[in-house]
Amino acid sequence: MVSKKIAVLPGDGIGPEVCRQAVKVLEAVAERFHHHFDLSSHPVGACAIDATGNPLPDETLAACRNADAVLLGAIGDPKYDHNPSAKVRPEQGLLRLRKELGLFANIRPVVAYDVLLAHSPLKRERIEGTDMLIFRELTGGIYFGEKGRTADGEVAYDHCTYSRPEIARIAHLAFQAAAGRRQHLTLVDKANVLETSRLWREVVREMATQYPEVTVDYLFVDNAAMQVILNPTQFDVILTENMFGDIISDEASVIAGSMGLLPSASIGAQVALFEPIHGSYPQAKGKGIANPIAAILSAAMLLAHLELHEEAALVREAVDEALNNGILTQELNHSAPYTTEEVGNYIAFWV
Amino acid sequence: MVSKKIAVLPGDGIGPEVCRQAVKVLEAVAERFHHHFDLSSHPVGACAIDATGNPLPDETLAACRNADAVLLGAIGDPKYDHNPSAKVRPEQGLLRLRKELGLFANIRPVVAYDVLLAHSPLKRERIEGTDMLIFRELTGGIYFGEKGRTADGEVAYDHCTYSRPEIARIAHLAFQAAAGRRQHLTLVDKANVLETSRLWREVVREMATQYPEVTVDYLFVDNAAMQVILNPTQFDVILTENMFGDIISDEASVIAGSMGLLPSASIGAQVALFEPIHGSYPQAKGKGIANPIAAILSAAMLLAHLELHEEAALVREAVDEALNNGILTQELNHSAPYTTEEVGNYIAFWV
Ligand SMILES: CC(C)[C@H](C(=O)O)[C@@H](O)C(=O)O
Ligand SMILES: CC(C)[C@H](C(=O)O)[C@@H](O)C(=O)O
Repeated sequence: MVSKKIAVLPGDGIGPEVCRQAVKVLEAVAERFHHHFDLSSHPVGACAIDATGNPLPDETLAACRNADAVLLGAIGDPKYDHNPSAKVRPEQGLLRLRKELGLFANIRPVVAYDVLLAHSPLKRERIEGTDMLIFRELTGGIYFGEKGRTADGEVAYDHCTYSRPEIARIAHLAFQAAAGRRQHLTLVDKANVLETSRLWREVVREMATQYPEVTVDYLFVDNAAMQVILNPTQFDVILTENMFGDIISDEASVIAGSMGLLPSASIGAQVALFEPIHGSYPQAKGKGIANPIAAILSAAMLLAHLELHEEAALVREAVDEALNNGILTQELNHSAPYTTEEVGNYIAFWV
Repeated sequence: MVSKKIAVLPGDGIGPEVCRQAVKVLEAVAERFHHHFDLSSHPVGACAIDATGNPLPDETLAACRNADAVLLGAIGDPKYDHNPSAKVRPEQGLLRLRKELGLFANIRPVVAYDVLLAHSPLKRERIEGTDMLIFRELTGGIYFGEKGRTADGEVAYDHCTYSRPEIARIAHLAFQAAAGRRQHLTLVDKANVLETSRLWREVVREMATQYPEVTVDYLFVDNAAMQVILNPTQFDVILTENMFGDIISDEASVIAGSMGLLPSASIGAQVALFEPIHGSYPQAKGKGIANPIAAILSAAMLLAHLELHEEAALVREAVDEALNNGILTQELNHSAPYTTEEVGNYIAFWV
């Protein structure tokens, strides 16, 4: 019996409804194993702007710092996307949270589930056996560089910078992960054009001597964008910078047949954060059609991070039950779809 | 009967062999229509570095400026990719050429050819009917911003900037193209994070009032990377900045079933340049297995640009003959592959 504090940040759009199912599953785990999970909810993103004017209220940040782990739903609202001059944006809450918590590594597994191969836009023979782990740097690069406009507003700029230590700390994690998997690391960059990419290549090449068992490949990002679709089984661990990781990991998610299945972990110096890779999907909000599995699998990653491995395995098995028995939301079960809540209930029941 | 100067820049890797076939086809067109094409070759890229120390020799640049159009093969050599500290790189030749010639708009058609659907990694029903035109900004953004290292070499930086006029000139071309097609323009950006993207959105939104018949959509680049695979037929014209265009257009190329089919045009203030979207593919160099069709279709775009529309149509028909009759290189014809030269000869014969 353990006692853990988990800060839950439901966020915007479908965030709250998928988080509710993940929380339900965590509660079922707590009951079954006689753990105590303190699952308090805190606002972030557009809903926090609406309530407090701040996309990351101090109280929310303090709760995250105090927690053993953070579970996040999704962030973003179209009313801000279409207002380029808005000074406060939901995404700032997420970016500041990543920075403040030092979440420098975002880790996304991409696995082709057998039962879902039919839903993938890719041909079965191309994707069968896909099992990759993407390491995306999350607190550096063009996301966090200086940005702004000239005084007359005619020119905009965004600066991308990377330092050796920023690259080295995530590269070590990626090398270690590769060493424990199929010993293959692919660095995705644009070293034929960007100086930051050349620094990434330098650091990774030097570090490779410390991991002699790991084979290292280097791919330009444009080529990587093709290879991920043409031949996804060639990849084991992919390592890349923030912006390229954003693009390539979302792209790779199509292999699985639904974004609604893919969890992610963001880890770093302090507390770790777990979230589905899908966005706030505002068109689906409140309709009961959002797939809660990515949020639930994020909760499973959270459990594993807290060293609750048996618990994590049980959640994954319950998800497999749902997948194998077609207890799935409409994008994966056209003929007899289940609601978000029904899928959550089913998985919680199996735990 | 017309007389035109076409500067041919074969470049590196498979560039020379595919260019040779495109030149052969242009010569066949000249003969058939009694035109005079002055097809002079000039070095660029790694081969130019080897010969002169300069990836874009003055003589080559002068020849391009003097020409009515430029046909390029491919640029790049792995010996430079794996040497991050090389001061002179083949790609600098290409980037400088784009800048010097003012080639601000790279235009790439992506079409799903019926006969090739079986070769696509994507399921037929997803891609049938795909017909998009990608406008990639080519002389701005992070490619051409300030870049470098701090004195101690520990920090690298790349600056991305865009000005209103830089965005407006390519956006006008994209709106005009959309107006003449299916009246649908999608701007791909990352306006939730980047200031440059917010400027793109501003300029495009303002400009949209001048093209009331065109419907404009805005997609974040991470979402676009999914949508291009999930539902490519939703796109008509895509407009985007330099780096996103590099990634998204290469990604979209997988739809066609082979990169070896896709041409591109780079146009701007002065002379226009035509090139296959594929790279120098050094592993295939000299083996006779490179697909010359992208280079030949680039030559067809070049002809259309010179207002030789009947000639361009004839080349495209000849390519269709090759496709329909399986006169194709190994990646599209496993059982009885033709060589680069045989495919070129066949197409030239049909012209
Ligand atoms: C919402 C946005 C700022 C965010 C990002 O680009 O990092 C999202 O796309 C993600 O990948 O988590
Ligand atoms: C070779 C490289 C510099 C170039 C680019 O990134 O622009 C290439 O990938 C392309 O797309 O033409």
